[in-house]
Amino acid sequence: MGKLKVGLIGGGGAGNFFGHVHKRAIALDNTRELVAGALRSDPAAAMEAAEAYDVTGYPSYQALLEAVQKGEQALDYVTIVTPNHAHYAPAKAFLEAGIPVLCEKPMTMTVAEAEDLQRIVQTGKVPFVLAHTYTGHPMMMFAREMIREGRIGDIRKVEAWYNQGWLATALESEGLQQAQWRTDPARTGISNCGGDIGTHAFIAATWVSGRSVKKVSARLNSFVAGRELDDDFNVIGELDNGGTAIITATQIAIGYKNDNGFRIYGSKGSLEWHQERAESLLVRMGEVDETYWIGGNYGFLPESVSSYLRVPAGHHEDFFEALANLHGTMERMIRGGRGEAVAAPFAHPGVDEGVAGMRFVKAAVDSSANNGAWTEL
Amino acid sequence: MGKLKVGLIGGGGAGNFFGHVHKRAIALDNTRELVAGALRSDPAAAMEAAEAYDVTGYPSYQALLEAVQKGEQALDYVTIVTPNHAHYAPAKAFLEAGIPVLCEKPMTMTVAEAEDLQRIVQTGKVPFVLAHTYTGHPMMMFAREMIREGRIGDIRKVEAWYNQGWLATALESEGLQQAQWRTDPARTGISNCGGDIGTHAFIAATWVSGRSVKKVSARLNSFVAGRELDDDFNVIGELDNGGTAIITATQIAIGYKNDNGFRIYGSKGSLEWHQERAESLLVRMGEVDETYWIGGNYGFLPESVSSYLRVPAGHHEDFFEALANLHGTMERMIRGGRGEAVAAPFAHPGVDEGVAGMRFVKAAVDSSANNGAWTEL
Amino acid sequence: MGKLKVGLIGGGGAGNFFGHVHKRAIALDNTRELVAGALRSDPAAAMEAAEAYDVTGYPSYQALLEAVQKGEQALDYVTIVTPNHAHYAPAKAFLEAGIPVLCEKPMTMTVAEAEDLQRIVQTGKVPFVLAHTYTGHPMMMFAREMIREGRIGDIRKVEAWYNQGWLATALESEGLQQAQWRTDPARTGISNCGGDIGTHAFIAATWVSGRSVKKVSARLNSFVAGRELDDDFNVIGELDNGGTAIITATQIAIGYKNDNGFRIYGSKGSLEWHQERAESLLVRMGEVDETYWIGGNYGFLPESVSSYLRVPAGHHEDFFEALANLHGTMERMIRGGRGEAVAAPFAHPGVDEGVAGMRFVKAAVDSSANNGAWTEL
Amino acid sequence: MGKLKVGLIGGGGAGNFFGHVHKRAIALDNTRELVAGALRSDPAAAMEAAEAYDVTGYPSYQALLEAVQKGEQALDYVTIVTPNHAHYAPAKAFLEAGIPVLCEKPMTMTVAEAEDLQRIVQTGKVPFVLAHTYTGHPMMMFAREMIREGRIGDIRKVEAWYNQGWLATALESEGLQQAQWRTDPARTGISNCGGDIGTHAFIAATWVSGRSVKKVSARLNSFVAGRELDDDFNVIGELDNGGTAIITATQIAIGYKNDNGFRIYGSKGSLEWHQERAESLLVRMGEVDETYWIGGNYGFLPESVSSYLRVPAGHHEDFFEALANLHGTMERMIRGGRGEAVAAPFAHPGVDEGVAGMRFVKAAVDSSANNGAWTEL
Repeated sequence: MGKLKVGLIGGGGAGNFFGHVHKRAIALDNTRELVAGALRSDPAAAMEAAEAYDVTGYPSYQALLEAVQKGEQALDYVTIVTPNHAHYAPAKAFLEAGIPVLCEKPMTMTVAEAEDLQRIVQTGKVPFVLAHTYTGHPMMMFAREMIREGRIGDIRKVEAWYNQGWLATALESEGLQQAQWRTDPARTGISNCGGDIGTHAFIAATWVSGRSVKKVSARLNSFVAGRELDDDFNVIGELDNGGTAIITATQIAIGYKNDNGFRIYGSKGSLEWHQERAESLLVRMGEVDETYWIGGNYGFLPESVSSYLRVPAGHHEDFFEALANLHGTMERMIRGGRGEAVAAPFAHPGVDEGVAGMRFVKAAVDSSANNGAWTEL
Repeated sequence: MGKLKVGLIGGGGAGNFFGHVHKRAIALDNTRELVAGALRSDPAAAMEAAEAYDVTGYPSYQALLEAVQKGEQALDYVTIVTPNHAHYAPAKAFLEAGIPVLCEKPMTMTVAEAEDLQRIVQTGKVPFVLAHTYTGHPMMMFAREMIREGRIGDIRKVEAWYNQGWLATALESEGLQQAQWRTDPARTGISNCGGDIGTHAFIAATWVSGRSVKKVSARLNSFVAGRELDDDFNVIGELDNGGTAIITATQIAIGYKNDNGFRIYGSKGSLEWHQERAESLLVRMGEVDETYWIGGNYGFLPESVSSYLRVPAGHHEDFFEALANLHGTMERMIRGGRGEAVAAPFAHPGVDEGVAGMRFVKAAVDSSANNGAWTEL
Repeated sequence: MGKLKVGLIGGGGAGNFFGHVHKRAIALDNTRELVAGALRSDPAAAMEAAEAYDVTGYPSYQALLEAVQKGEQALDYVTIVTPNHAHYAPAKAFLEAGIPVLCEKPMTMTVAEAEDLQRIVQTGKVPFVLAHTYTGHPMMMFAREMIREGRIGDIRKVEAWYNQGWLATALESEGLQQAQWRTDPARTGISNCGGDIGTHAFIAATWVSGRSVKKVSARLNSFVAGRELDDDFNVIGELDNGGTAIITATQIAIGYKNDNGFRIYGSKGSLEWHQERAESLLVRMGEVDETYWIGGNYGFLPESVSSYLRVPAGHHEDFFEALANLHGTMERMIRGGRGEAVAAPFAHPGVDEGVAGMRFVKAAVDSSANNGAWTEL
Repeated sequence: MGKLKVGLIGGGGAGNFFGHVHKRAIALDNTRELVAGALRSDPAAAMEAAEAYDVTGYPSYQALLEAVQKGEQALDYVTIVTPNHAHYAPAKAFLEAGIPVLCEKPMTMTVAEAEDLQRIVQTGKVPFVLAHTYTGHPMMMFAREMIREGRIGDIRKVEAWYNQGWLATALESEGLQQAQWRTDPARTGISNCGGDIGTHAFIAATWVSGRSVKKVSARLNSFVAGRELDDDFNVIGELDNGGTAIITATQIAIGYKNDNGFRIYGSKGSLEWHQERAESLLVRMGEVDETYWIGGNYGFLPESVSSYLRVPAGHHEDFFEALANLHGTMERMIRGGRGEAVAAPFAHPGVDEGVAGMRFVKAAVDSSANNGAWTEL
């Protein structure tokens, strides 16, 4: 069937690491290859970065798009890994050109931009995947499937969190590039902590549970002096079925790395998952705790999940494999659309989840500014 | 020095188990003995229960008090383990008679009652211990000491929780006595979940951190049909230093037992503790996670904590020992007051914490009824 | 029914802590009380120690026995907590007088002494409990019951271990009394590590699995210079059904405290337990890991186990409670023998297990001295 | 610098999964690519398998070698993933042709074959990496470096294990190909369990500790009826410095997956690692347990280890990344040999460790057959 050809927008900056993560996630399965890139906003720097990446370089995403449209560059989809403010323009351009997009989160800077992408995708029927990496973890997918099958009954309460400590001090004043753009409203939008990691917690709360959040009451903090945006983000939400969501994220929890996870309580049982122990899912249906481990050969996994797994039990597929699963979903969408015989893609977050995420962050920021008043999404 | 003589109010009911827990916590160290009891509200049942407990029985707490005052019954202090609505009257009576009281929590039914006890204790200088059992866990005591010494810097955020699943169905309709009184406003007060276990989370958040809660925004739920009081309790609080507290408790988390714990984030480090792994404390000051285990011989424990420990490292002191530590604190207060040579009592929760807890629950109930409006304690 | 009256032999030494552990285990349930003691070998010191223990003191175990026989001292059973070499004489004396004995392990200094006690107990039908504290942990009892019911099929392999680090340096040269007698052949016998903690691993391997060890091949080490006896103990054993046992113990594992545990592999499933997480049992029967937690109200526990539990799920009974369960077994044997209505005693280790333990240590010491030659027990 | 071109020998069988694991480990970093394969012993099947792998197919390894030698096929190194009996011939052929080899373990069928490869590698100075995947885990590499720096002092005792359950029943009679060749002496050699996973435990015990095993006493079992080779493997070893190694492996531990790990006890501290929690290393130097987590940005990691890491803390590199690290080591050896600027390769197992592993298995099999007699390696 040949390898899918992938382009990369962004990821070439000095301190950047996530471009390289996508590079590896693309390469991992040997069915996709990174072939082209517009890797930095500065044209010269972009061309230089392309060498390090060992791909065909372009000075801008527009130049890459033009080359594709002229038939000079074969390309099956692009991956966008720029800072938040630079998601929308290339995403829009490629989608309008009918080229599938796998885009980092949060999807855009504003709700309006998000809704615009949603419209384009819905109209054009172009494959779009939002890179909520963690939803590519098989046990998170399995949790979603268990809930869809009604195994834990009606959803009553969801707790989702993301605790980090890397911004507990003012790293942005010490020249760390990652810290600089993330705490800068011009590049990151109206929320730092909420947009960056609060959205992960939000997706865990909604995408896994199958419920949406209707309205929120929030308290955002900026603990580190001189910081304009939030570094701590706390939300109580009401679910569409009247249930409750507790969604928290922080960047000032010293010693915590990527402590993302969820607990979902239903009328028949509970599920619990931790990103830093991504290989297992805790299921509590009664007296005995059940732990389900990742493993391609496990009979308890539905085909929709096990078809993503690469090895039998006992060897863990983790972060790179999770992200590769999102690229795999994109691959299934593209190949399936061409009539190739591939498994059905899993329902990973796309443009609708992107819009919901933007609305969620906006509502939380507004509620916090309004003394915690309940605010509709 | 002779054993202290202890009386018990309540604890004789059929399904009751906490009276027996106190019985064992009193007996454990062989320096205190349970000698008398007014164990049920019905006089005949009270006398019958006393036989099972193997103590001198009294038909009522008043009768016990009278016997003490007449010199017919030797008694060093009483322990009150009745349902919530029956804490205040005996506590008041014994305290006014100058007899020390160790009382179950929540301290009273109303803030006014709580403040009344506070006044009596402050005026009479009578030893009073509030039975927040978990504060007797040595690693929780150690956490408090670390914070007092400034080890984790200024407190920014506190998360404290208590997740249970035992009331996920309507057990009160199936005749379970514990479920009946706890969900009955007449016997339990204005809050079920918040009063019973939310107060434990509150104490963890405040007593350990050394910070108080100024105001709260709350969302309380009654998930099980027909239930008048909350079975799910969610609070965002503002600390006295401007920090944030997230305090949650639930009784509908199926499969969760006594999942109580806290995370406290300071400007220099973080602490994390779980009641179901009470024997260790996770300390995160930088790159390397540190786990401190319980052990009477450990040099890292201050004398204020190690003086409560009974065995060297590797054998865990757990629930009964924690409660015995509260009785031990009462014992140190009494014996110290008499001039006996005992170690200083640890600052376990007393009447002030009882008042704060009552105000906290009241403010949370009011806030929730008022659509989450921020409410002062 | 009145409290059982208990005597204590040993436990009064300066650095001693286990006498006080028994004191608390006796007191915990409020159905037994420590009333008398011959607490040290030196008569004057013994009388002094009795004051600290708040019991009637005797200058020697013989004096205590005489007082009992003359009817001057009421006594239901004695607990022996002397160093190893001083178990046999008092055990023999009290047993021959028909007084039940709860004795620390290893039972005696030699196999011959152990067989002598066995003979006396069998002839006189006097209750005897060997204080293998850990067998009092309910989840260890539950593991034994699961195996007896055939839940994991035929036993193929057993791994049991006990790792400590406290003797990684020559503490015996620094004046630590516990280290001195444990490393002294005159007081501890032919093995230090094997006798003290290897026997715990042996009991886990045999008492839980229901299998005996037929013969062993061993390698014992003395890693710390100048030490006569083993501080590291490694045994491969053959079970009576042809299966294999791996039994290891060490005192030089720096940072390990009381890391005792077992894994038992049967033809249908596996069990795993750790003393330092005594409150749960890991059961593996197929794809899903099952964790069973301690809790008096759990339906999965047979009455033989749950009748020992004091609280519902989520509050852990640990070390003191486990030892109290052995005293509880003694209590059930005594009260049952008198016709009182008590639950049946659990089959905790007694004189037969004591003999087996002594033979095991002897065979391991002999095998190691004989270059690992397989040696019958 | 261009991607290294890699060939694959074996890995094309129906049930095979490890060929695909290597395929991904080769692709992951985007600096190596799988270009050619002789994927099955049957020529036609080999050509068919090449299509599925999307590589240039060859009917045999000889044909591939010939094409390379004729300059028709560019190739930087080969990876051998055939069953054990088919390692030696292609390894020898490619090495003698000066082509680097990354070979699966156990290295060969016999000690003589292993020594022959050792001679060829030493004479020809051809890069050779033995695919002990787990040694590619960064925290295992870190453990080795800590020991080399003397952080835990002199090595006293090493425990290494590998517990699996997949052969607890006679899967080889049910047509499972993996089970068939692994339990067949003609294809697997003198040991099944010892050769397959005992060697992993052996490498953990020796490569991490920096000590060799001088002699062993072993007990091997075949628990499942009808099985010629061992499915359970237990060894006590003597280290070159007089210390002790306990090396066990089993395939009958139902519910255990790849429970591989080690504990190493030195005169100053202890290290513990588990493959199923590969992202952390437990270090015990005294009272406080230290847990070190994986993370490319952690200052505690020496450059020799951190240079292998791909992401900062909190996202785990696991199984595929570990194997990719071995391919990375091969890449560093090749590129470094060509004068390209690459970091120094880590000292991953090579031909010497392969010989040691073969001698270890041979000595264990002989010892077990000889009633556990101590047998030199």
